[in-house]
Amino acid sequence: MTYETLDYTVRDGILTLTLNRPDKLNSFTVTMAEELIAAYDRASVDDEVGAIVVTGAGRAFCAGMDLSSEGNVFGLDEAQQPTLRDLEERFEDPEVVRGVRDTGGQVSLAVYRCTKPVIAAINGAAVGIGATMTLPMDVRLASEDARIGFVFGRLGIVPEAASTWFLPRIVGISRALEWVYSADILSAQEALDGGLVRSVVPADQLLDTAYALARKFVDGHSPVATALMRQMMYRNSAAPHPVEAHRVDSLAMFYTSIADGKEGVRAFLEKRPAEFTGRASALPPFVPWQADR
Amino acid sequence: MTYETLDYTVRDGILTLTLNRPDKLNSFTVTMAEELIAAYDRASVDDEVGAIVVTGAGRAFCAGMDLSSEGNVFGLDEAQQPTLRDLEERFEDPEVVRGVRDTGGQVSLAVYRCTKPVIAAINGAAVGIGATMTLPMDVRLASEDARIGFVFGRLGIVPEAASTWFLPRIVGISRALEWVYSADILSAQEALDGGLVRSVVPADQLLDTAYALARKFVDGHSPVATALMRQMMYRNSAAPHPVEAHRVDSLAMFYTSIADGKEGVRAFLEKRPAEFTGRASALPPFVPWQADR
Amino acid sequence: MTYETLDYTVRDGILTLTLNRPDKLNSFTVTMAEELIAAYDRASVDDEVGAIVVTGAGRAFCAGMDLSSEGNVFGLDEAQQPTLRDLEERFEDPEVVRGVRDTGGQVSLAVYRCTKPVIAAINGAAVGIGATMTLPMDVRLASEDARIGFVFGRLGIVPEAASTWFLPRIVGISRALEWVYSADILSAQEALDGGLVRSVVPADQLLDTAYALARKFVDGHSPVATALMRQMMYRNSAAPHPVEAHRVDSLAMFYTSIADGKEGVRAFLEKRPAEFTGRASALPPFVPWQADR
Repeated sequence: MTYETLDYTVRDGILTLTLNRPDKLNSFTVTMAEELIAAYDRASVDDEVGAIVVTGAGRAFCAGMDLSSEGNVFGLDEAQQPTLRDLEERFEDPEVVRGVRDTGGQVSLAVYRCTKPVIAAINGAAVGIGATMTLPMDVRLASEDARIGFVFGRLGIVPEAASTWFLPRIVGISRALEWVYSADILSAQEALDGGLVRSVVPADQLLDTAYALARKFVDGHSPVATALMRQMMYRNSAAPHPVEAHRVDSLAMFYTSIADGKEGVRAFLEKRPAEFTGRASALPPFVPWQADR
Repeated sequence: MTYETLDYTVRDGILTLTLNRPDKLNSFTVTMAEELIAAYDRASVDDEVGAIVVTGAGRAFCAGMDLSSEGNVFGLDEAQQPTLRDLEERFEDPEVVRGVRDTGGQVSLAVYRCTKPVIAAINGAAVGIGATMTLPMDVRLASEDARIGFVFGRLGIVPEAASTWFLPRIVGISRALEWVYSADILSAQEALDGGLVRSVVPADQLLDTAYALARKFVDGHSPVATALMRQMMYRNSAAPHPVEAHRVDSLAMFYTSIADGKEGVRAFLEKRPAEFTGRASALPPFVPWQADR
Repeated sequence: MTYETLDYTVRDGILTLTLNRPDKLNSFTVTMAEELIAAYDRASVDDEVGAIVVTGAGRAFCAGMDLSSEGNVFGLDEAQQPTLRDLEERFEDPEVVRGVRDTGGQVSLAVYRCTKPVIAAINGAAVGIGATMTLPMDVRLASEDARIGFVFGRLGIVPEAASTWFLPRIVGISRALEWVYSADILSAQEALDGGLVRSVVPADQLLDTAYALARKFVDGHSPVATALMRQMMYRNSAAPHPVEAHRVDSLAMFYTSIADGKEGVRAFLEKRPAEFTGRASALPPFVPWQADR
């Protein structure tokens, strides 16, 4: 499988997913959206992949929507008057998928349903969809050169890619509002101070830092337990009552305890490294417990 | 339109909404509640208003409920035995609205549904409803003289004005609980350390700081995009699944892209300031996508 | 009432609940789970108890599940193939309660429904269920000797005890994910930096610090108002819309205002300490407004 706009390289259990249109500052196109969705869905069932590092080729991470690209990146048909009911009842209808549904949001939902930890290595400008596409990722690392901007307001449009669901979970609702209202470009340090990125490192150490973190998530871990943790964290935390988490926990604990959990406990008692055999491509039967699209 | 308890002054696109009972430390009455609701609803459709700064006249912001005022600020009728069902099925029933529904909460819901950014400029004591009324505002600035207290517990009553929905979103659930359990009066610095206020400034710079921030939200921005962002942030972030944000995003992006978004992108490509023509008084047809009361 | 695994001591309105298997580092057993549930439910209606401090006897807080204990701590029956439907429709069925439902989660739900402020005084190792059992507590204090680890991933199992509902509310989703992915043991300082604990104190000051905080929550407060605040904060903050908080607020304000609130306001106006007579064992009739199990 090859990609026009991405590079998909797996080494030692870590997938590096590189936005790869460096001459266009990795700006976002419909093709890139489709390829990103395919890549995340592929990585979810690729048992060679234990964790994912996402970065940009060249000097930018992603400079936003490619406003000069062929084809209708917004997917608009002005003759339509879409309603919320269309988005509910005709959600999978090709006309709605292509003509109304936000392209960036379709990518965000693919990250959301992914079964592997996802680390953003923000190497340069991350603007518009370049910023919002990092929000469903689990951890954001920034190079000192990173510049991050939720600039939609300056263009007369709105933050997309389900960013209003993710951003307040990361930086709190007050800062999230200030950043989208002002549409400022944030320095790496401002992003750090606001809690958007976990750490800021010199440009030449960015990928090594990301790989070192990814290693900690992969080595000695059960891919099944990791996949379940990721899904449990995003889904359970948004439930209206902890009993909903308790229901899912009970199933997750039940199924892991009769599988990798047996080996894990045995290895712990025998003071030796565990050898897990579970695969993220074969999760317990209760997964997923919510529909995603 | 005139107000007994407020001052409503618009200058250069910014509404200053002043709690205006300085001889009573701007304490809260039923009349003030009704006037605040009317003022927020008016500002939502007043196209002269791009952002709102809320402050207090004199030395206090709002010293809480006016316990000496005429009329029943709690709206109680002890003979009633209201149930949750009453609050659901008879929510708009005048007897429930006046006799049971929390007055402060009715104000909070008016802030919540407002279409303009709202900045609290907390110039002095903000106690009880004076503290909780700032929580649905988007950003809180404090003068060095500010004192903020969620003092309900000392009076044998509970935090109201939907504050248990807003406060944990701002400061986290653990600090929110500690503050309401202790009922302490917080200094401006404590409020800053806890994440309740964005910054603390000398008293004589408070309003200028608030106006400078408001300017950043207004100048060069599309009022329609700003109104949508505000609603999307509060509503989408509380949804149980990001697909619900994706549905709303898709509509918001669709309708803004065929309106102010066209001008925004054109201006960006032509490297000139955009001239947006959309008005917050005429939002796209899918707004509001949830009922508010 | 006596306990095998706990010590339940009330002094001056504060319950100290001590995990009391020091020779086993207070590791968690089915008996401890049952006794914890009974103790929290007892404290909820014990009017001698104004607040709860939870700590461990000896050098550990709780070293996790007792993997050597008699009986099936996971409660598993491998022949079952439980589904989410079983956890919904047969939730109280003894076979599901004992054979499938996560034991730690049953304890977390008991903390969640508790009517008293709960402070964790983490005196040493808090690992696995020893870490997750502190998350539904309201405030966590750590001794310098504390070590906290969400180590499930190393054992091939998942974080339980509804921790994926609580942990992101306390430390944000990004840090929560990093901690469960890495399964690292955190120092007290790392826990503080991440926002998991409120403060770190020398070991010999831990309990005094906890008691001083508990005193602030108890002295001069209405137990009814405190009980309502706790429930309102956890439940209302997870609602999809603030109107749901407004409904509950209205009832809570109504019922407290005709009871302890009358005395509270009178005492305030008369500048004397209030003498509240309400009891947490007799909450207003609308409580609880959501089912818990």
